[in-house]
Amino acid sequence: MNFSRRLGLLRRRMAGAEVPALLVTHLPDVRYLCGFTGSSAALAVTRREARLYTDGRYIAQAAEEVHGAKVEIVPSNPAVAAVQWLAVRITDIPSAAKAPLSSSGSLRRLKPPPPSVTRFSAPSSNEAVGFDAGQTTVAQLEKLRESLPARLRKKLLKPVSSLVEPLRWLKDEDELAVMTEAAALGDKLFEHMLGFLRPGLTEVAVAAELEYQARIRGAEGMSFESIVASGARSALPHGRASEAKLPRHGLLTLDFGVILKGYCSDMTRTVCLGKPTAREREVYETVLAAQESAVAAVKAGVTCGAVDEAARSVLRQAGMAEAFSHSTGHGVGLEIHEGPRVGAGQKDKLAPGMVITIEPGAYFAGEFGVRIEDMVAVTRTGGDVLTHSPKALIEL
Amino acid sequence: MNFSRRLGLLRRRMAGAEVPALLVTHLPDVRYLCGFTGSSAALAVTRREARLYTDGRYIAQAAEEVHGAKVEIVPSNPAVAAVQWLAVRITDIPSAAKAPLSSSGSLRRLKPPPPSVTRFSAPSSNEAVGFDAGQTTVAQLEKLRESLPARLRKKLLKPVSSLVEPLRWLKDEDELAVMTEAAALGDKLFEHMLGFLRPGLTEVAVAAELEYQARIRGAEGMSFESIVASGARSALPHGRASEAKLPRHGLLTLDFGVILKGYCSDMTRTVCLGKPTAREREVYETVLAAQESAVAAVKAGVTCGAVDEAARSVLRQAGMAEAFSHSTGHGVGLEIHEGPRVGAGQKDKLAPGMVITIEPGAYFAGEFGVRIEDMVAVTRTGGDVLTHSPKALIEL
Repeated sequence: MNFSRRLGLLRRRMAGAEVPALLVTHLPDVRYLCGFTGSSAALAVTRREARLYTDGRYIAQAAEEVHGAKVEIVPSNPAVAAVQWLAVRITDIPSAAKAPLSSSGSLRRLKPPPPSVTRFSAPSSNEAVGFDAGQTTVAQLEKLRESLPARLRKKLLKPVSSLVEPLRWLKDEDELAVMTEAAALGDKLFEHMLGFLRPGLTEVAVAAELEYQARIRGAEGMSFESIVASGARSALPHGRASEAKLPRHGLLTLDFGVILKGYCSDMTRTVCLGKPTAREREVYETVLAAQESAVAAVKAGVTCGAVDEAARSVLRQAGMAEAFSHSTGHGVGLEIHEGPRVGAGQKDKLAPGMVITIEPGAYFAGEFGVRIEDMVAVTRTGGDVLTHSPKALIEL
Repeated sequence: MNFSRRLGLLRRRMAGAEVPALLVTHLPDVRYLCGFTGSSAALAVTRREARLYTDGRYIAQAAEEVHGAKVEIVPSNPAVAAVQWLAVRITDIPSAAKAPLSSSGSLRRLKPPPPSVTRFSAPSSNEAVGFDAGQTTVAQLEKLRESLPARLRKKLLKPVSSLVEPLRWLKDEDELAVMTEAAALGDKLFEHMLGFLRPGLTEVAVAAELEYQARIRGAEGMSFESIVASGARSALPHGRASEAKLPRHGLLTLDFGVILKGYCSDMTRTVCLGKPTAREREVYETVLAAQESAVAAVKAGVTCGAVDEAARSVLRQAGMAEAFSHSTGHGVGLEIHEGPRVGAGQKDKLAPGMVITIEPGAYFAGEFGVRIEDMVAVTRTGGDVLTHSPKALIEL
């Protein structure tokens, strides 16, 4: 992974947001920017430097994983240590004036000491540490503020919307390679499950087999709680695997994903146990047409809303508008749900490198439901479908 | 589960914190208070009423699961809807004055309209909606504030530390029954694994088998990513299962937990493949003595720090103080890590109904590590150990 490129892009966004320094605490963001996968970390980024703060459990792991940032091991809250370092870095306070900060020879000042008159004035606009307002709790912010010298407490920390997430929307080549592999593992698992499924198995037994196979084939885990929903339960968009038994006749929806090298896959197929009824087939074919219509609409420059509409209009024309009760898809990557949201009216435009799901469905409470989902990588000219499992209705 | 008792206890805490109304958004708290398990919810609690806000995906599920609260289905952000309702409930604004709120016949005013002079004054101390500062992001708070009428925007919402979490520390009878069952499932899985383990298996294959057996024996999932760490990897306190193969001779640490009816179990055993070396046995016996010392120290009224010290002093006396690099344990329940923290110097006192882990360890980088962990329910007179797997060193 090209971490230095990512930090470079982040610094451009920091300049745009007028924050000369940024505190990154959301762990997928930290991993994205420097490779660290530990469970306790904060990354401090300035125009020229980056430091990864973590605790003593991760000395060996951080040394191995972290790229493009100096590692600092601290005894307590990594975010507090990161903010204190940033405060020294971008303001005129001497490090010695910062009581809570342990003295460290490596803390140099960037600017000469200013006259004392200005030393205690409010921070200038150059003195701002951005933090992600969507990932920082009110209590965390309070703790960060309390760790700062009085004159910086009120104004130094500046809430910003995530500067990292929009970068993560655009997958680079390394990421696309991993996600292609993750999607291919999903395909192999689905193929395996086709040979495993039979009436009488509980949904839980199906999920257990799926997850076992994922593990022994190299998945670090599942992207989310696997959905195995059979018969009338297929009408539940989020039907957790239950003790219900697969029927002799009826639809079965499998919605699952694996995690490979940190990246999530996501796919859904609905298959039929026994012969489908005419109504089941009709709904299936309509959802499939909607899904293919949305896949065909994927292309750089197109709005997410237009992709959603490509699926939704097919279902609407078939009189199934109300049966499609959720969005068409979402971005996927280090997290199972990322931006952009592929929903009605969404103005975000697709761009090359985005990886989104296309997963329309139709649900009829008490009867059955159908959902079909692929992962699609956006290219300049269209969409590269990463999921290759067959989509024609499979009868088992 | 006795939800009305829980709401009653919460209301006492609300009175103590001087908040006549409380917004609960942390999902385990919502589940604890009213039983709802969906992924999108906010619970609004006043002195006399409670309302659970969720979205259209959960109509059927909420009707089935929610106890002691009226269910409201809303098209968008449940927390915004909950705060808007609370604002009408506890202040003197008429519901019609609240533009963002959809008009609803069910929104009654509690107090008569006040004179217009006071209507636009700052909220009185009776007009406070508490929110959990540790679970609410800066961005969420901003969104909640923006949804309120101008005069309430600045002062209505009052940050409080969690009022629900301390209640959750004390498990009631129903919870203890479920957690006993979850711990027993952990024991059965460990017993199964003893028959499965053999040199040459990858750690991942061990984790896969463990998780498969958990699933088919009724677990909803695992409490956390299973730790399977063999040979020198046993020296990693958080060694994820890797492609490393179990050695012919060496220690193996299994640290895992299941989720049963929402409640987490947590246990660790270290076993030996082949004959242990004298050093391995010495460390094992010392960690075991430390673990048993801490278990024996568990009793209502004792501080968490004293329990930690009971384990730590044994390791210290054996010259292994530095090898024990983490806390002795933590509370467990609907979340795998809850309070109280059983760490050095912790002043929280144990109380009947708390369920904590006791899991000292000793780790020697590049060599091996040992950890032994039980779940213990605190009683008036001691500790009821919920984990029953043998603790004498097992040689496989």
